[in-house]
Amino acid sequence: MFLPTLLNQATPEQQDRFFMAAWNLEIIGTYAQTEMGHGTHLRGLETTATYDPSTQEFILNSPTVSSIKWWPGGLGKTSNHAVVLAQLYTQGECKGLHAFIVPIRRMGTHEPLPGVIVGDIGPKFGFDETDNGFLKLDKVRIPRENMLMKYAQVEPDGTYVKPLSDKLTYGTMVFIRSMIVGEAAHSLSRACTIAVRYSAVRHQSEIRPGEPEPQILEFQTQQYKLFPLLATAYAFQFVGSYMNQTYHRITGDIHQGNLSELPELHALSAGLKAFTTWVASSGIEECRMACGGHGYSCSSGIPDIYVTFTPACTYEGENTVMMLQTARFLFKSYTAVMSGERLEGMVSYLNDVALQRVQARPLAGRSVVTDINDLGSLVEAYKQRAAWLVVAASRNVQADLKRGKRKEDAWNKNSIDLVRASDAHCHYVVVRLFVDKLSELLDMAAHRILSSLCLLYALHGISRNTGDFLQAGLLATSQLEQVDQRIKDLLGVIRPNAVALVDAFDYTDTHLGSVLGRFDGNVYENMFEWAKKSPLNKTQVHESFYKYLKPLQSKL
Amino acid sequence: MFLPTLLNQATPEQQDRFFMAAWNLEIIGTYAQTEMGHGTHLRGLETTATYDPSTQEFILNSPTVSSIKWWPGGLGKTSNHAVVLAQLYTQGECKGLHAFIVPIRRMGTHEPLPGVIVGDIGPKFGFDETDNGFLKLDKVRIPRENMLMKYAQVEPDGTYVKPLSDKLTYGTMVFIRSMIVGEAAHSLSRACTIAVRYSAVRHQSEIRPGEPEPQILEFQTQQYKLFPLLATAYAFQFVGSYMNQTYHRITGDIHQGNLSELPELHALSAGLKAFTTWVASSGIEECRMACGGHGYSCSSGIPDIYVTFTPACTYEGENTVMMLQTARFLFKSYTAVMSGERLEGMVSYLNDVALQRVQARPLAGRSVVTDINDLGSLVEAYKQRAAWLVVAASRNVQADLKRGKRKEDAWNKNSIDLVRASDAHCHYVVVRLFVDKLSELLDMAAHRILSSLCLLYALHGISRNTGDFLQAGLLATSQLEQVDQRIKDLLGVIRPNAVALVDAFDYTDTHLGSVLGRFDGNVYENMFEWAKKSPLNKTQVHESFYKYLKPLQSKL
Repeated sequence: MFLPTLLNQATPEQQDRFFMAAWNLEIIGTYAQTEMGHGTHLRGLETTATYDPSTQEFILNSPTVSSIKWWPGGLGKTSNHAVVLAQLYTQGECKGLHAFIVPIRRMGTHEPLPGVIVGDIGPKFGFDETDNGFLKLDKVRIPRENMLMKYAQVEPDGTYVKPLSDKLTYGTMVFIRSMIVGEAAHSLSRACTIAVRYSAVRHQSEIRPGEPEPQILEFQTQQYKLFPLLATAYAFQFVGSYMNQTYHRITGDIHQGNLSELPELHALSAGLKAFTTWVASSGIEECRMACGGHGYSCSSGIPDIYVTFTPACTYEGENTVMMLQTARFLFKSYTAVMSGERLEGMVSYLNDVALQRVQARPLAGRSVVTDINDLGSLVEAYKQRAAWLVVAASRNVQADLKRGKRKEDAWNKNSIDLVRASDAHCHYVVVRLFVDKLSELLDMAAHRILSSLCLLYALHGISRNTGDFLQAGLLATSQLEQVDQRIKDLLGVIRPNAVALVDAFDYTDTHLGSVLGRFDGNVYENMFEWAKKSPLNKTQVHESFYKYLKPLQSKL
Repeated sequence: MFLPTLLNQATPEQQDRFFMAAWNLEIIGTYAQTEMGHGTHLRGLETTATYDPSTQEFILNSPTVSSIKWWPGGLGKTSNHAVVLAQLYTQGECKGLHAFIVPIRRMGTHEPLPGVIVGDIGPKFGFDETDNGFLKLDKVRIPRENMLMKYAQVEPDGTYVKPLSDKLTYGTMVFIRSMIVGEAAHSLSRACTIAVRYSAVRHQSEIRPGEPEPQILEFQTQQYKLFPLLATAYAFQFVGSYMNQTYHRITGDIHQGNLSELPELHALSAGLKAFTTWVASSGIEECRMACGGHGYSCSSGIPDIYVTFTPACTYEGENTVMMLQTARFLFKSYTAVMSGERLEGMVSYLNDVALQRVQARPLAGRSVVTDINDLGSLVEAYKQRAAWLVVAASRNVQADLKRGKRKEDAWNKNSIDLVRASDAHCHYVVVRLFVDKLSELLDMAAHRILSSLCLLYALHGISRNTGDFLQAGLLATSQLEQVDQRIKDLLGVIRPNAVALVDAFDYTDTHLGSVLGRFDGNVYENMFEWAKKSPLNKTQVHESFYKYLKPLQSKL
């Protein structure tokens, strides 16, 4: 994040000065924003940068334990400079958060500079290879020119010049979130590759007594665990691409001044980041457990995939906060529609609300005729379900406002419903993007199997959320039984294609990092070879025998 | 498992011989059952023990790579003896699995004995402190007397004497599963303790703009994540106790010859083991993520709780297999009822099926009158939901049988429904045991708050499964809105009691192993102290600087 921040916030002169030094490894930089006490709520960051006009320096200070910078990768032992986000004070006033380049370790010796307390934050769930660090600054002075001044400036006499606009940071956030959605697809698809391949290698138990043990992929319960996740990995791949393409199209527009689509994309990207990372994270663990005992061994490769991916649910926007950001946009859209506006884009379905085609409480038994075999019809059902939940959540908030609640309390006290509405909106978007993607596929065989995967994804989502679809009047009970049967049929359709579908991700064995998921399927011999290399097997007799067991045995 | 196996399967003379040696640490034993190729399907184990009457020895052999014993704790480097489960061959016939004591490392030197290949299986997701091992036996000879012969015997001439009965192993399995359910409660309650306490310490963001940042436990979404899990931890504690008490009551009966309750308890314990471990495992990760960024640090203590607990979903009975075992009992019970039998115990609700008070497809709109504020009424609703799903799954199986499917295929092709029915049955049992427990509480204040927790548990389960309750005609849509509102109210009732409820588990700080969850709440200062002790901070400048960075920088 050090170099992108330089790109975005440094003046051309600063970029020249710092880029060359970074190229030479004179500067090894990190981006220090998060503090021990503040991650989500940036306005609460406590590190201060106070301008001293007599020396034309900023004084960087960590006033409390909770103000200590905490978490940035590479900060602990590797970096010698940090871009530090701090509250700017000049001429006696706080001007908010700004970025400052702070040298933290001496060139040549790498010793911490005076006033700098820096180190590693200790062991973590994963990322053992990364020195996530802490940084405490004790009145450290830097030249005025070290403040990144592309937008805001501080003049030599301390006068603050404010930036023109900050809507441009939206673009970066959207870009990063599209990368994260792609990472969700990537991590889940790797876990699925391992689990599906291994399920075709592993034979266990009997379906028909007396016959040889079948591949565990023959068990319907195993297919039910893995194939919806496989469909999800494909779905998320398409969502990530869509976000990336839309980001590039819109930022093309921004430079021509057209910001109109950005608010929706920014709000949507928040929810999609949360939706995909939560699903992928738990999905990876489902894949590991589907591999039985050997899934728990690092030879499966899945523990590493999981601990590396799961923090995506927390960083770059904590997921619940992200869902509520999307909810805020949905609520705003709903109130706009109720005031007579017409909406465009992904939330245009809310326009129907004004025409009263969607009710918050449809009559039980009445059902919009959803054809469960037709993808377009299913997309419509997901859309209506989202609308129903957005309306219900929004009405709950408005009801509390009418009762005299303060608007923040009305928001907090209905936040469960708001997250649920956000989630349903994102779910609709994912289903829709998957279906849209199918129309781009030119290869007949790919189109056929991906349509089955898409149908499984859509129907599985319905079967996990039957209450919503029933309450919204979108499906009847008899149709739900058909949904269950159709899912079972689809598992059978996908079964002979499952290995091909994961081979299609085309991960090399090295990239997969898994013995269970080897392309050649030669698992058992290679598991034995892998185990022999365990550090504990360097010697036949472990040193603990001499240190602990033998002395105890000698006393007999 | 070495010593319990001795207790259960060794003759008195064998026990005398081996116990003293174990007491002296002459014998450090392990229990070697699982192989690389077989865990769940024991009949597929490939290790052989062939009797040689000419020397009165058994020859233990691992004929294939997949036959290598794999996973037993302590096997890799520590143990010098193993109880090996192997297929017994005598007089040219295979007699099935039996237990043999096999010396594997030499006393005094700890070197592997001739024909023994033994070592550690390599890094794992957790349990880094345990040497889970592999064991390959190359025609290793042991005396005839090393076969555990309390039940089955092999005479000196090789004649096999079969055991009288093997229903007695049921008891051990039930006992172990009750321990695992207790472990689920224990692990989840530790994670909840950490997350709830930390959520009362951590302040972030604003509910009301301009006011100080509130504790994150003030956010409804945070309460919604944690309080149902807290209720679940209490529920599972009560389930574990019930299983343990019932096990002791029944095994009292067994020794007097009364085995009648054992089949139901054995079947039920399988499903409860699966139900509680799955929920607790994902619940622990919910707690970690609810702690934001710091949850990912080992200073939260939760990563260790998770990696230590999660394999419980796989060992001692893989969870899906466990659910299907319970399903088999439920299906048998259903068919018994339909043939006119009357059932006792936890499945007696199926008796109603014969009286046609439960239909597989109730009319939409009709609703058994469930009072959502009455715990007894909610227990009844869970019972009816379970009945509805057991009937539906059983009918699907029978319909396939009528269509001419083989019974194993009918079973496999409806196994999704069978697992779902099993899950609902277990869910009913948990709700019921929680409600039953309340009547034992004598303290008024404890009764009051635990009733709120119990109500939250029951209503939350309904809100996550609304489709089932709607389709079974147990609740109307309008009631579901009341359920949602009631849940929100209960979160507010529990909020001021949350910290007391976790303090009530009475975990010492040492036992909890968490900085975030410290009893004194003094998190930040102690997080800084904890971090300073990171191995990477032993020196101010890490050796990697000298090895890698400095040489690169010197080239400038």
